[in-house]
Amino acid sequence: MPSVIPEDSVGLVTPELLHFSEPLALACGRTLPAYDLMVETYGELNASRSNAVLICHALSGHHHAAGYHSLDDRKPGWWDSCIGPGKPIDTRKFFVVALNNLGGCNGSTGPSSPNPETGRAYGADFPVLTVEDWVNSQARLADRLGIGQWAAVIGGSLGGMQALQWTISYPERIRHCLAIASAPKLSAENIAFNEVARQAILSDPDFHAGHFQEKGVIPKRGLMLARMVGHITYLSDEAMGEKFGRELKTDQLNYDFHSVEFQVESYLRYQGEEFSGRFDANTYLLMTKALDYFDPAHAHGGDLAKTLAGVQARFLIVSFTTDWRFSPARSKEIVNALMAARKDVSYLEVDAPQGHDAFLIPIPRYLQAFSHYMTRIEV
Amino acid sequence: MPSVIPEDSVGLVTPELLHFSEPLALACGRTLPAYDLMVETYGELNASRSNAVLICHALSGHHHAAGYHSLDDRKPGWWDSCIGPGKPIDTRKFFVVALNNLGGCNGSTGPSSPNPETGRAYGADFPVLTVEDWVNSQARLADRLGIGQWAAVIGGSLGGMQALQWTISYPERIRHCLAIASAPKLSAENIAFNEVARQAILSDPDFHAGHFQEKGVIPKRGLMLARMVGHITYLSDEAMGEKFGRELKTDQLNYDFHSVEFQVESYLRYQGEEFSGRFDANTYLLMTKALDYFDPAHAHGGDLAKTLAGVQARFLIVSFTTDWRFSPARSKEIVNALMAARKDVSYLEVDAPQGHDAFLIPIPRYLQAFSHYMTRIEV
Repeated sequence: MPSVIPEDSVGLVTPELLHFSEPLALACGRTLPAYDLMVETYGELNASRSNAVLICHALSGHHHAAGYHSLDDRKPGWWDSCIGPGKPIDTRKFFVVALNNLGGCNGSTGPSSPNPETGRAYGADFPVLTVEDWVNSQARLADRLGIGQWAAVIGGSLGGMQALQWTISYPERIRHCLAIASAPKLSAENIAFNEVARQAILSDPDFHAGHFQEKGVIPKRGLMLARMVGHITYLSDEAMGEKFGRELKTDQLNYDFHSVEFQVESYLRYQGEEFSGRFDANTYLLMTKALDYFDPAHAHGGDLAKTLAGVQARFLIVSFTTDWRFSPARSKEIVNALMAARKDVSYLEVDAPQGHDAFLIPIPRYLQAFSHYMTRIEV
Repeated sequence: MPSVIPEDSVGLVTPELLHFSEPLALACGRTLPAYDLMVETYGELNASRSNAVLICHALSGHHHAAGYHSLDDRKPGWWDSCIGPGKPIDTRKFFVVALNNLGGCNGSTGPSSPNPETGRAYGADFPVLTVEDWVNSQARLADRLGIGQWAAVIGGSLGGMQALQWTISYPERIRHCLAIASAPKLSAENIAFNEVARQAILSDPDFHAGHFQEKGVIPKRGLMLARMVGHITYLSDEAMGEKFGRELKTDQLNYDFHSVEFQVESYLRYQGEEFSGRFDANTYLLMTKALDYFDPAHAHGGDLAKTLAGVQARFLIVSFTTDWRFSPARSKEIVNALMAARKDVSYLEVDAPQGHDAFLIPIPRYLQAFSHYMTRIEV
């Protein structure tokens, strides 16, 4: 809780729920008859409507990207280090839009919402969404806000994939794409980790084929395990080593299976426990599927340069040296394809020990380059 | 099933169950009053008893390291590529001993064995074992077989840790130590992966606090998940990519959570399924704990060179370039400590795409160097 809101904060913010009544056709072949999006904005849209920036969130993110909902908040929004007056995404210059994606569990229509056909929660009957579907729903959001073209679409990880998809789906509606700690598609290993997380949830007896809400339970064990395995991939071996090493929780070994022996076990169990209390299991499944399915080059025989032939945006691609979930090599695939397609791309590889999570952390070199790029954007 | 036993095979072998009635004091403070070890041997012990080699197994291994139990066997023992006439561990020269470790589930006394105090299976009451305990039980096995000193103790991964512990616990009883794809202790990330596997098993409602046998069930879901997550760490990103890429199981995406979409999912589910039918959950927990606890330098303030000051063996340390479970850097920690302690050590880093599993695979450069080292051992 901040005793005083910091000067470089966007301050107190209030999310807004926007209703969309025009049906949305989805990649899976189904149609959402209507839906809500939970949205937060920071800064002011200028008269020429040329200064709007869209923030796309990653797997477990949401609309609350910056500032505080109340003075009692323990922490600000998830990307507060990058959004605010004087920060890389400077709210004195830009009108910033953040949303909870469709299928999410933070207010937007998702598996926990009532299915108009049954009156009960969708549960596992909620359609599986793709990055393209999200971008289409975000385009509707732009229409609603009167934004013809984004000055920039920005995201890390799965958020970066949405930013990239924007340049392909709506080339004329995005001037700059910033894809941070991202990849043009998942590797087999990435899919494998997602599959373990899904099986953990699906095999939890409390999952009840996705209709656990009707039973008054949540698949807590499955969600815990999914988060624990995910969390390992967000940190680098180095970061974990520096943070926990082999430090024991108590003075001596317990020689049993239940006790928390090492600090890292305690940390992981806490992360899993905390997450299982706040995140919806069906949303988690849906998000991992969207990740698995993302492969924009697939429609062009795997040729990413060809896929990007029609894009008009300029790009900043950022990676972090110890990120092994989406390593620098994966970012370079995007950079190389953009260069082959003769597009305008800047690339920054940040030397950082924090692994994939680095994109959320205020690393000076990263913020500096991020700010520099954003300063050059004309509005 | 081999229609004809290959010429370089040790042929048909029969395991033997050896009973040990002298109590074994364990690191945890408890004592095993008596125990059985399931053992297989290949080749002949020479007159001077100087040609014996001990094979130590890894997490899910056992005593059946080479040859066939019957002509109906689909596959030979787990390290058949390295043990046999003309192979690196040449059975024309060496008398090879392989065992199922104490606490295992392939015939040696373990959690599935009857607890003499209750008459029922030990289950989770079986004592948690350490690498030191295993080495002590293996020393008893050496005594029983009349082997005063091993020509070599050899193991990969957790097996390499046992080989290393032999040089510390019984310096005068081992002439050569071969530690392959191993590490001097687990990293925080290694422990984290083990913790996920343990939580998967412990949180399975069918685990019943480790006494599932009495309930007539097995914690199949937990074991499946544990194996799936483990399996990812045995392969390299590269190996997974080459093996599966993003190949779809069927022609098109299913847009649901249950279908197997990508080949890698199918492979992982099969691995987990198969494993859960043959491996004991309590043994799995026990093996991961033995890995977590292994840290011989701990007693010497973390100074591995000091820990190794009294060893008399010569060493071959082998690592594989794409092994990220126990990377080459981890092997080099052992090499550097041995050099600092002025011991005789050879080191080989094998360029191999297969990840941690490479130690089980007949990679020419690896077999060649392995053979070369073994040839120089005097018996």
